[in-house]
Amino acid sequence: MGIDDLLSDEDRAVRDTLRSWAADRVLPHIAEWYERGELPGIRELARELGSIGALGMSLKGYGCAGAGAVQYGLACLELEAADSGVRSLVSVQGSLAMYAIHRFGSEEQKQQWLPRMASGEVIGCFGLTEPDHGSDPAAMRTYAKRDGSDWVLTGRKMWITNGSVAGVAVVWARTEDEGIRGFVVPADRPGFSAPEVRHKWSLRASVTSELVLDEVRLPADAVLPEVSGLRGPLSCLSHARYGIVWGAMGAARTCFETALDYAGSREQFGKPIGGFQLTQAKLADMAVELHKGILLAHHLGVRMDAGTLRPEQVSFGKLNNVREAIEICRTARTVLGANGISLEYPVMRHATNLESVLTYEGTVEMHQLILGKALTGLDAFRG
Amino acid sequence: MGIDDLLSDEDRAVRDTLRSWAADRVLPHIAEWYERGELPGIRELARELGSIGALGMSLKGYGCAGAGAVQYGLACLELEAADSGVRSLVSVQGSLAMYAIHRFGSEEQKQQWLPRMASGEVIGCFGLTEPDHGSDPAAMRTYAKRDGSDWVLTGRKMWITNGSVAGVAVVWARTEDEGIRGFVVPADRPGFSAPEVRHKWSLRASVTSELVLDEVRLPADAVLPEVSGLRGPLSCLSHARYGIVWGAMGAARTCFETALDYAGSREQFGKPIGGFQLTQAKLADMAVELHKGILLAHHLGVRMDAGTLRPEQVSFGKLNNVREAIEICRTARTVLGANGISLEYPVMRHATNLESVLTYEGTVEMHQLILGKALTGLDAFRG
Amino acid sequence: MGIDDLLSDEDRAVRDTLRSWAADRVLPHIAEWYERGELPGIRELARELGSIGALGMSLKGYGCAGAGAVQYGLACLELEAADSGVRSLVSVQGSLAMYAIHRFGSEEQKQQWLPRMASGEVIGCFGLTEPDHGSDPAAMRTYAKRDGSDWVLTGRKMWITNGSVAGVAVVWARTEDEGIRGFVVPADRPGFSAPEVRHKWSLRASVTSELVLDEVRLPADAVLPEVSGLRGPLSCLSHARYGIVWGAMGAARTCFETALDYAGSREQFGKPIGGFQLTQAKLADMAVELHKGILLAHHLGVRMDAGTLRPEQVSFGKLNNVREAIEICRTARTVLGANGISLEYPVMRHATNLESVLTYEGTVEMHQLILGKALTGLDAFRG
Amino acid sequence: MGIDDLLSDEDRAVRDTLRSWAADRVLPHIAEWYERGELPGIRELARELGSIGALGMSLKGYGCAGAGAVQYGLACLELEAADSGVRSLVSVQGSLAMYAIHRFGSEEQKQQWLPRMASGEVIGCFGLTEPDHGSDPAAMRTYAKRDGSDWVLTGRKMWITNGSVAGVAVVWARTEDEGIRGFVVPADRPGFSAPEVRHKWSLRASVTSELVLDEVRLPADAVLPEVSGLRGPLSCLSHARYGIVWGAMGAARTCFETALDYAGSREQFGKPIGGFQLTQAKLADMAVELHKGILLAHHLGVRMDAGTLRPEQVSFGKLNNVREAIEICRTARTVLGANGISLEYPVMRHATNLESVLTYEGTVEMHQLILGKALTGLDAFRG
Repeated sequence: MGIDDLLSDEDRAVRDTLRSWAADRVLPHIAEWYERGELPGIRELARELGSIGALGMSLKGYGCAGAGAVQYGLACLELEAADSGVRSLVSVQGSLAMYAIHRFGSEEQKQQWLPRMASGEVIGCFGLTEPDHGSDPAAMRTYAKRDGSDWVLTGRKMWITNGSVAGVAVVWARTEDEGIRGFVVPADRPGFSAPEVRHKWSLRASVTSELVLDEVRLPADAVLPEVSGLRGPLSCLSHARYGIVWGAMGAARTCFETALDYAGSREQFGKPIGGFQLTQAKLADMAVELHKGILLAHHLGVRMDAGTLRPEQVSFGKLNNVREAIEICRTARTVLGANGISLEYPVMRHATNLESVLTYEGTVEMHQLILGKALTGLDAFRG
Repeated sequence: MGIDDLLSDEDRAVRDTLRSWAADRVLPHIAEWYERGELPGIRELARELGSIGALGMSLKGYGCAGAGAVQYGLACLELEAADSGVRSLVSVQGSLAMYAIHRFGSEEQKQQWLPRMASGEVIGCFGLTEPDHGSDPAAMRTYAKRDGSDWVLTGRKMWITNGSVAGVAVVWARTEDEGIRGFVVPADRPGFSAPEVRHKWSLRASVTSELVLDEVRLPADAVLPEVSGLRGPLSCLSHARYGIVWGAMGAARTCFETALDYAGSREQFGKPIGGFQLTQAKLADMAVELHKGILLAHHLGVRMDAGTLRPEQVSFGKLNNVREAIEICRTARTVLGANGISLEYPVMRHATNLESVLTYEGTVEMHQLILGKALTGLDAFRG
Repeated sequence: MGIDDLLSDEDRAVRDTLRSWAADRVLPHIAEWYERGELPGIRELARELGSIGALGMSLKGYGCAGAGAVQYGLACLELEAADSGVRSLVSVQGSLAMYAIHRFGSEEQKQQWLPRMASGEVIGCFGLTEPDHGSDPAAMRTYAKRDGSDWVLTGRKMWITNGSVAGVAVVWARTEDEGIRGFVVPADRPGFSAPEVRHKWSLRASVTSELVLDEVRLPADAVLPEVSGLRGPLSCLSHARYGIVWGAMGAARTCFETALDYAGSREQFGKPIGGFQLTQAKLADMAVELHKGILLAHHLGVRMDAGTLRPEQVSFGKLNNVREAIEICRTARTVLGANGISLEYPVMRHATNLESVLTYEGTVEMHQLILGKALTGLDAFRG
Repeated sequence: MGIDDLLSDEDRAVRDTLRSWAADRVLPHIAEWYERGELPGIRELARELGSIGALGMSLKGYGCAGAGAVQYGLACLELEAADSGVRSLVSVQGSLAMYAIHRFGSEEQKQQWLPRMASGEVIGCFGLTEPDHGSDPAAMRTYAKRDGSDWVLTGRKMWITNGSVAGVAVVWARTEDEGIRGFVVPADRPGFSAPEVRHKWSLRASVTSELVLDEVRLPADAVLPEVSGLRGPLSCLSHARYGIVWGAMGAARTCFETALDYAGSREQFGKPIGGFQLTQAKLADMAVELHKGILLAHHLGVRMDAGTLRPEQVSFGKLNNVREAIEICRTARTVLGANGISLEYPVMRHATNLESVLTYEGTVEMHQLILGKALTGLDAFRG
């Protein structure tokens, strides 16, 4: 569909770097990591990702690459073409933890954390979602109490990517007088712990944790000074969702290409299954949604670079691209027949990964209601 | 979604002209025309369309507007936002009949026909499809026999838009020695007749005819000199399909906007139905596919202007945009509840129109197999 | 699928009678009636339907056939296999107007009206839906005021099948002290009028009207004595919906069979299109949903005869069978290619008919929420 | 929907026995087995299944329970409500290995194997599918060569449930003069091995193996005497598919019930998510397909008991019920939000299991083409 013609040389260079890194460092091992439910060497992977500029890629200064939005998107796509878990690591690091500090932090906070996060030396996580309020952050229960000039944080956060390996957490909490505020919490603070979530059947090559904050005492300057209210975490989510819009198409592309290759070589009834009408219809429909999704992601990227991207447009992309990506992966699974259930092919891994991606950062239904509100002016979240 | 930001001022001017013309000349009457199954004043409409440059819009010279592909696409969109029948009139005139003469005709043919066709003085039609070979033009039975230097054409063509009102027909026929050739057939030739197709339940504000060629004698110079073989008509189809890619989104836009308006004002259970989750999900999904379709059309237009558009990319767009458009219209129909079945709203008209658009110029299945072949290299048309 | 094995000889006799009647009296004319938007001879058709026992078929006594629920269902299926409009005539007569009088009327009302309605001498209609409250009958505005012992009715009803040709209307109205009550309103009462709804693009071989009640004075005994509240009309709706569960499968069966025949005889690329994989997949999927729908209808019929059928089970059937029927018809339309849009085939007529059937007697969304409430115990109608 | 009213007391007793066994012996451990990819204690489970009559349940004599088809179906449903892997164990044992011997074996073969297989002492497997010919058994390469009166088998079979733990394998092989024949192969024969398939991401609580036959020598009486040709294995497949028709609804029921429970207790925006329209629409649609599927399975069971069930009717059920079951499980997954990806809930396990069930014993496409052939009389398997 001529997507490449939309890209600059610099765009293509970013893409090639990430694709090459993933081919060397992720693809040879990912099936095994996934089956075992581990991401061994995550700290080393983080440092390598830092060294190729993938952490906080679209941020400026403080050791960040300062790349454009399309380039950041391409990076997400290439990483998720390898595995959604690896892309999640990068999204949480760059679009949530670093982005929050970069946009809402003090100069001291930025200087303290961003260079080490950009290099991958420090891994960050982002504590917003709570166990009982996945889709409704306004109902947050974690609270920050003043004690003298200190803050004392208590509460629980859930589904926190990178939690157990994070050196720093950006945690959002309710305060008595100032609404919701963000806090930069070093992971070594007493009272802070991050037990890992077990028994996941998706994103298995990713660290997911609970955060437990048991009267974690922080100095006054731990608060992010430049924002209060839900606007803070929501703008981070919007940035991360933008990366997902691209990333999901990476998973879809891998599944599509796997199915196309398989259909070209696997024979039944004396010819390649790619020569049967029913298979061609699947391949054509997969190709259609894949390319539409990439065009959409590119369109959003151009708007982000132009400064005209609105949050509901990101919702549009997140809703569509993850929903279509999972459908593509499921269809690819059927093209592979019985082999489709084996981790020796990437398809089932991507399909199960996308179950998480479909849900996190806003389910299909939440984004439908965000768009519904944008279209009608009527709020239907509460029914 | 910021589609407008993709357009130039000139693009927007074309769009506004067509939209305004359709609002004045089509919308006040179309429901009545549709119900009666007529397009009265078609000759006057053609001349008006000619006067605003809509006939052969993307062709250069000979009285044509020489507009860019995106502008032509926008024109198709605005016309089909009024009615698919009116857009079909323009597509057949410009992308099929005029395009064939412009691209494959002699200088004499161009000078003889194009200026009068561009002005709308002469309406053209395009005779390719036959009653028994809708999806397989290679099986064409109409033939042109040499008799001295003359050609004598015999056969039947079916589903010919503009047939009964055409002053000239471009007719494709099998020849003994030269494969398939195109002929410029003035409608007043003895043996040529174009009985209208009755009992259509779609495209009712459009003239659809059979063409009967009963030993129609033509001079030697009636043949289009610059092409032989199926490549000729197929390249015309590709051009017309490009317009459909845009046009279908016009029908979809009208239905979407109608549903959105209705949802904002129609109340049930004490509030506008647009405030209910189930309605918002519909509106959101409609908006998503509508905007993806327009982005895709625009992408194809940019490629056409750049000279890099390939036929299978047009297939991609035709497959997707008509299929999604009809789905949008059907969903809009349900948003309107019982009122959705009334011609007092445009939705049911567009939905039934698109049944034709879904089929003509290649069904979903044909385009899936075209894409399937492009993807796999394997031909599955014959199963 | 062996559906016939589920039927008794008596069931099959009913089915054959109706099928034969429809073949003689409806099929030869229906396309023309539909195109013209008329049901000429409706009074004669009604009398013929009466003579074969199809009016109030499942009611006992008063000249009604007293047939079982499965037989009544089969009758609806065979009638709607001809046209949804004809089935609607019978549903409204038997399941709404006659059923209301039979179940909630006084002995005098029954004797006065039912025999003449069973014979088809008098056509009945049922006035519940109002222009502004299609899905929410509790918001009804039509009211009945006491004036001495008389009642005076004022209001408007909308989408009333049989309205303009009805000799009697069962009208539901709000009262001051007694909630919603039903009234038997002879159509010749001053102040009663039934202007026909124009510009319908569905159910065109059916009379649809508005009812205007302008201070219609009725004697005290016009009220249906045995019910007050919404329970009255809702139980009528449930009975009518039961007939639709079967009827929709009739429309679907006709479209499926038309597509199957067409696929067997229409050739493309040198063989019948029924021999192509993509067509076979469509036919298989159509057959699957058709037979599942009939099994479901039969299951509900057996329960109705056993007295164990609950309203939400009818919702289940209405939701499913109409939704699947319209999908079957739309798919059949594509199998017929360009011919699918012609009224010379029944497919487009059925597909457009079902747009009404999808909406009336409860939209998909209403039935989803009815089932949702039955499943969860939570009311979400108001969002 | 009153499914229970269709069952006899005996049916319900079978159902309760199996449900209770699964609740005691499978449900407490299955998540852990699944995560580890093991089915420990499979031999003991087999003996317990034998003791409750679940192995070869529908067969008569030789220690088998001789139950009716509906009862066998209910057993499959209850087992698959626990896990598709456990149901697969029972299907392969009873419907494939035992069924083949029971129907096509000699009296000696039956007496030698069936009592020990019915008791669960010996586990059987069924070797038909080959690595390169999943959907086309006619292309089988495994062959049996005569050597004196002996047979010598060579070849490879793939995706063999129970392979590595089987004491006996029914293996189908090509012969020189007699077409395809079945052989009863004790697993301890030299040259027979069954390496386990690793890296499955579906049916993880099930043993899946390759069978390698390296010149396995068998006596003359190892052949199943009563059948030659593909009719033999295909009739076994049809019997097993019948069990899948029921079984898939078990997986679907568990996912539906899990989603319903979750929706009733999980709160967002201050109320249970089951009170939101979008959730209710999902639950309603899940319930609709679940109950239609069970009705269909029951209908097929009644026909099997009556001896009127045809193979294409089983295809109908397999096509529909697995396709709908996987859709129900995927929808249930979304109702559970982020928790849906955890093995602490059964949904993701069932959804991934059904990827195998969707494929084995005939993909969606194969059954569409089987039905397509039955409907049109035209064979489209080869395209």
